[in-house]
Amino acid sequence: MTETLSPDLLRRMHAYWRAANYLSVGQIYLRDNPLLEKPLGKEHIKHRLLGHWGTTTGLNFIYTHLNRAIVERDLDMIYVIGPGHGGPGLVAHTYLEGSYTEVYPHIERSAAGMRELFRQFSWPYGIPSHVAPETPGSIHEGGELGYSLSHAFGAAFDNPDLVVTCIVGDGEAETGALATSWHSNKFLNPARDGAVLPILHLNGFKIANPTVLARIEPEELRDLMRGYGYEPHFVEGHEFEPMHQAFATALDHCLDEIRRIQDEARAGGAETAKRPRWPMIVLRSPKGWTGPKEVDGKPVEGTWRAHQVPIAKFDTEDHVRLLEDWMKSYRPEELFDERGRFREEFASLAPTGRRRMGMNPHANGGLLLKPLHMPHFRDFAEQVKTPGDHKAEATRVLGRFLREVMRQNMQTFRLFGPDESASNRLEAVYEASGKTWMADIEAVDENLSPAGRVMEVLSEHQCQGWLEGYLLTGRHGFFSCYEAFIHIIDSMFNQHAKWLKVTRTMAWRPPIASLNYLLSSHVWHQDHNGFSHQDPGFIDHVANKKSEIVRIYLPPDANCLLSVTDHCLRSRHYVNVIIAGKQPDWQWLDMESAVRHCTAGAGIWEWAGRGGDDPDVVMACAGDAPTVEVLAAVMLLREYVPDIRIRVVNVVDLMSLETPDEHPHGMDDDQFDDLFTRDKPVIFAFHGYPGIVHRLTYRRHNHDNIHVRGYKEEGTTTTALDMMVLNNMDRFQLALDAINRIPRLESQREKAAQRYWADIERHKLYVSEHGQDLPDVRGWQWKAEETA
Amino acid sequence: MTETLSPDLLRRMHAYWRAANYLSVGQIYLRDNPLLEKPLGKEHIKHRLLGHWGTTTGLNFIYTHLNRAIVERDLDMIYVIGPGHGGPGLVAHTYLEGSYTEVYPHIERSAAGMRELFRQFSWPYGIPSHVAPETPGSIHEGGELGYSLSHAFGAAFDNPDLVVTCIVGDGEAETGALATSWHSNKFLNPARDGAVLPILHLNGFKIANPTVLARIEPEELRDLMRGYGYEPHFVEGHEFEPMHQAFATALDHCLDEIRRIQDEARAGGAETAKRPRWPMIVLRSPKGWTGPKEVDGKPVEGTWRAHQVPIAKFDTEDHVRLLEDWMKSYRPEELFDERGRFREEFASLAPTGRRRMGMNPHANGGLLLKPLHMPHFRDFAEQVKTPGDHKAEATRVLGRFLREVMRQNMQTFRLFGPDESASNRLEAVYEASGKTWMADIEAVDENLSPAGRVMEVLSEHQCQGWLEGYLLTGRHGFFSCYEAFIHIIDSMFNQHAKWLKVTRTMAWRPPIASLNYLLSSHVWHQDHNGFSHQDPGFIDHVANKKSEIVRIYLPPDANCLLSVTDHCLRSRHYVNVIIAGKQPDWQWLDMESAVRHCTAGAGIWEWAGRGGDDPDVVMACAGDAPTVEVLAAVMLLREYVPDIRIRVVNVVDLMSLETPDEHPHGMDDDQFDDLFTRDKPVIFAFHGYPGIVHRLTYRRHNHDNIHVRGYKEEGTTTTALDMMVLNNMDRFQLALDAINRIPRLESQREKAAQRYWADIERHKLYVSEHGQDLPDVRGWQWKAEETA
Repeated sequence: MTETLSPDLLRRMHAYWRAANYLSVGQIYLRDNPLLEKPLGKEHIKHRLLGHWGTTTGLNFIYTHLNRAIVERDLDMIYVIGPGHGGPGLVAHTYLEGSYTEVYPHIERSAAGMRELFRQFSWPYGIPSHVAPETPGSIHEGGELGYSLSHAFGAAFDNPDLVVTCIVGDGEAETGALATSWHSNKFLNPARDGAVLPILHLNGFKIANPTVLARIEPEELRDLMRGYGYEPHFVEGHEFEPMHQAFATALDHCLDEIRRIQDEARAGGAETAKRPRWPMIVLRSPKGWTGPKEVDGKPVEGTWRAHQVPIAKFDTEDHVRLLEDWMKSYRPEELFDERGRFREEFASLAPTGRRRMGMNPHANGGLLLKPLHMPHFRDFAEQVKTPGDHKAEATRVLGRFLREVMRQNMQTFRLFGPDESASNRLEAVYEASGKTWMADIEAVDENLSPAGRVMEVLSEHQCQGWLEGYLLTGRHGFFSCYEAFIHIIDSMFNQHAKWLKVTRTMAWRPPIASLNYLLSSHVWHQDHNGFSHQDPGFIDHVANKKSEIVRIYLPPDANCLLSVTDHCLRSRHYVNVIIAGKQPDWQWLDMESAVRHCTAGAGIWEWAGRGGDDPDVVMACAGDAPTVEVLAAVMLLREYVPDIRIRVVNVVDLMSLETPDEHPHGMDDDQFDDLFTRDKPVIFAFHGYPGIVHRLTYRRHNHDNIHVRGYKEEGTTTTALDMMVLNNMDRFQLALDAINRIPRLESQREKAAQRYWADIERHKLYVSEHGQDLPDVRGWQWKAEETA
Repeated sequence: MTETLSPDLLRRMHAYWRAANYLSVGQIYLRDNPLLEKPLGKEHIKHRLLGHWGTTTGLNFIYTHLNRAIVERDLDMIYVIGPGHGGPGLVAHTYLEGSYTEVYPHIERSAAGMRELFRQFSWPYGIPSHVAPETPGSIHEGGELGYSLSHAFGAAFDNPDLVVTCIVGDGEAETGALATSWHSNKFLNPARDGAVLPILHLNGFKIANPTVLARIEPEELRDLMRGYGYEPHFVEGHEFEPMHQAFATALDHCLDEIRRIQDEARAGGAETAKRPRWPMIVLRSPKGWTGPKEVDGKPVEGTWRAHQVPIAKFDTEDHVRLLEDWMKSYRPEELFDERGRFREEFASLAPTGRRRMGMNPHANGGLLLKPLHMPHFRDFAEQVKTPGDHKAEATRVLGRFLREVMRQNMQTFRLFGPDESASNRLEAVYEASGKTWMADIEAVDENLSPAGRVMEVLSEHQCQGWLEGYLLTGRHGFFSCYEAFIHIIDSMFNQHAKWLKVTRTMAWRPPIASLNYLLSSHVWHQDHNGFSHQDPGFIDHVANKKSEIVRIYLPPDANCLLSVTDHCLRSRHYVNVIIAGKQPDWQWLDMESAVRHCTAGAGIWEWAGRGGDDPDVVMACAGDAPTVEVLAAVMLLREYVPDIRIRVVNVVDLMSLETPDEHPHGMDDDQFDDLFTRDKPVIFAFHGYPGIVHRLTYRRHNHDNIHVRGYKEEGTTTTALDMMVLNNMDRFQLALDAINRIPRLESQREKAAQRYWADIERHKLYVSEHGQDLPDVRGWQWKAEETA
């Protein structure tokens, strides 16, 4: 059998790998003496040893081999590292290929630079221990495990010439998100999209346990990968030469196969492409490969003890010698010249320029980002002559706008949703593009297409992971989801928000498109599905993240939704959360009023109030359903107290409630006082859990007078108005709250309470009898009136 | 080939299925005329049609067959329904078998009862549309998809005689949580645990799309199931008779195989049991099976259109007739007698008593729950002579207590964790029991055992799902997790908290054991892993749920951790969140002081303050790391301002900050004022995001003076003290805050600011130079002093 690598190439590649391993050990351990020119002493070793050795050499091995393939085939390739704690490896490789120094010129390619490279790693004010945003070539931090493969597929969509190599760690492979993401191959079109080459890296152990996939029967593992739709190629062992040859052979085979699949599909075009059986590699290599075999009499290489630092204490001279011997086993003098430069004989193996994985612009999406071609959102306006003159489904209106966004950006925009785009009333988008589907299509199916651009799979993890990968490589997207179930990706949102926060101030990483969520089928529109579908807590979750990054919008009607969405799609480097209902509901603002209102973030609805500048009460609302209730309460109050003076304030941009030092959208105190007064009672009907309104406003002058109603975790299968009643945010309650808090109406409180109970009784009786809301409540027509 | 079912049995079973289907349609559609004694009219049909038809008949089919197996084999079986929106089916079956009426006597087994059964479904003040807590026999609501299989395995652990049949929906199968949960079979011991029989129900469609598993090649699906370690048996078709025979045959085969596996394993015992290839069934049947083939000229049965209500509008008489024909196709007159009772000929097929799946006590765990045998937690006390006299690792101390809890409850208690029990310093538990592992074990492994009771897999979803299943079936558990990554199960927590909320007031469901979380490796102890590992937001997430259900504890030291944990393990029907660090840190309270302090929930630490009843400032803290910083700040303040009067308040039970009307643990205003004063500045160092302290205290008299420091989303790989500095919660900042807020110290502010910057500078220089914290800061010995 002929070997894939010539003896000389193998020798040089092995040296390259040794160099990367040497630099990896150096980063974990050394603060000085980087080339070991002096005998290693305790003073050269960091006091605090942080880093993960176990996975690093495997990652280095693969990187070395990918470099060969990139050079030989002139590949456009990026590398997604599931086991992102192997940070030292990626730093080492990008340093060896020169990317690191280009991005960070103070880390020179010299002995001094190497010293700095070592020292900065996991060092305060240095660099993090993981494959962090700071690492050139990374789009995936990998600290929280599970998202590598969906990120990889997201990167490959609409990038036909890109190959994304994705290392899946065998620990990571146990997570839910990863387990389902293998099925991404049912959504990747070989004619239109790039390729993902998964490499399942079985190094056998997690922090403290073996891994499941490393300990099942080989046939089971093969069946599993075939069941996921891949053709696995196994590379297993620990001896260097055979492993190099075997891996090179497998890699060549996979890349040939990818080429063949793509050529075949592209001959026919995206519309008719079939799902192929994509190749993948299973690499089984020892954990902590090339590291110490034993430390203090206990086996380390090939065990879970190699996970972090194999030698953790240097209390004896023996440990110092062990480290020195280990590092010298890589023969650094052969690899680096006396000035500490990587010898050209080996360095020349790396790709050059943007072919280097550390410099590939796809891994720095802001470099490639182009603005969306945007249709004029005003063209899709809902016609509103007077406030509340009709009902419309806000998200259906939005769907028509998104259809045009899609039409004008058929290579750089995708819509993501867990089987809910239609349920969320965005069907119009299908007129521009179908739903991506590479599995079988049958006669009864609608809107499915191998070339579709609407990504639907019943996994919020997949939607989020794909979208993140798509955005991080410089494209645009929009994720619509049931509000309650967006919590499924709480932790993924966290990690993305952290990535945005860190990269925001990194000049070499230009901004990327914002991550835009539309949360529909929200808590007030899940009266039919019941309690499990009712949870508005994503607002609170998001609001904890950095204010430079997060935006939360609660458009009260369709035109506001259009205005907000247009703004979000144009924005950069944020997470925008838009919450809007799908049910037919009252429309309030004409397009220009909506634009003005959304631009301000919050404002007085003069037309809805009465009594001008000196209100008895401020009726505030945020969210479409609370807005309807507040306006209905205003109708009741007008009837109950003919001379009442009411101000209606609507809040679209939730963060405008905060002070400007806490959030850039925050109103200053004067603006806040202008809306909410300094001393009048404020009844605030809020879409979510009420606590956050207090949290955002506790510093305001009038805070003690703000009385918030919201979701208080009451619900079941019932009617829409009854959901309000269960949570005490119904119109009757809001009206009662107002009367109870207006001092001059004290004498009317008892009567108001009686009226309240009569209304509730009438409601309950009707609902109980008819199974639906009172028609003269739900259908209640808002009527404007002259302000007094 | 001989048929499994005799013609007569088949006929009766088919009738039983028809009856369940009839009752399911009736629930979705009818408000009256339940037996169709009169011609169906519009007035008999509900105005608002809510429910999911598509999956229901498949669920009914399986239930009918399970009944046969239960009777023939005297099986102890429960049924976990992944596609929980098929609620009508479970209600129908439990009604037919009599369970429903036993639980809800007003739903009689008569025509009047049937009318009520139909009417109440998805009806306000009736019952929810899903397999909710209200449904007898359910431990799984199924509204949020993905957790059925891990619930099923959790139920089977330590229940050797139980068979848990678990229906996995093909939509649900796309979720991450479900995708990884197939691997639960590597953690189930056939000698010790019960069996799980997964039935993958391929009905082909989700809300609006086909499902992935229904559209891959049959060989791929077989490979996938074999790759997961199962032996799949396929039952496919739509013709009634062959389907009955095929399913009965497959079910018998699987149950025989389960019996054989268990017999074999039990002959050898749990310690030596090997992982078998468990059987499972793939049932491929049409969506909306037996429903209308077409509505308005569009195909319905076998398509996504059958997902919810196949006939959605009754605007024409044709639609009424279509419904009537559909319902009559089940020939109700053959099934029910003139009084509406299910005919004995068919009813006699059901199991009786507790063998009925609706009455199986395992699906109502509170019935089986026994208190844990509890060791005396005081026996594990950390010896503390004076506050701050030494450091200890709180979770390591806890580990010894948990070891004894484990030893004394070797059939009813398990510890769960995503590969982190050792990392979280709970290793002592392994002395009582190893980690469950049914895959291969190698020489290098430690503490693995097929009979282990510590459940470790790198999936928070699996840990949570197993634990929920274990608790819901009447046992006890404890989940330890890295704080940041507990967000992975935010949505699962939501659903469990909702379940507890609903069942809390259901008399027929007695309370179950609390779900106990230990969040360790918390935000202040992830300086080494960096930003991705730093997130204390689970507190905020949990605090949104019903106050009757949630408890959040921040024990400041090891003895408080012991006291709190003992309390939590004895509690019922709560979610308890305990946050405690694993790093060596100062110990403050002796055991009896700790018990008193934790019982109160919050208190003044007299020994730490000075100046008695009239403090200049209240230094408050919640969380172990903030407590250390506050006490260090007190040391600084004593030095800076010799006559300063300081009160130190420590909060263990976070919810004690709320008012009693908001949370049962809330302090009344007098108690709050006694601790925090009505008018003195309060500097509050908080473990998590600061906003929640404002949210919990905004109603308190002294709220405007409460100044909160906490995690403000700053972090990276750095030192522990530097994490505090980055977030402005370090001792220097807290001391400065105090001086800046004490009016009489106004003249000292400038000097204090200078001192602050000098301290920060010194810190940064040292950390930057040495890569670790100043030893005389980190090692600072707390010294008590006589109060003035």
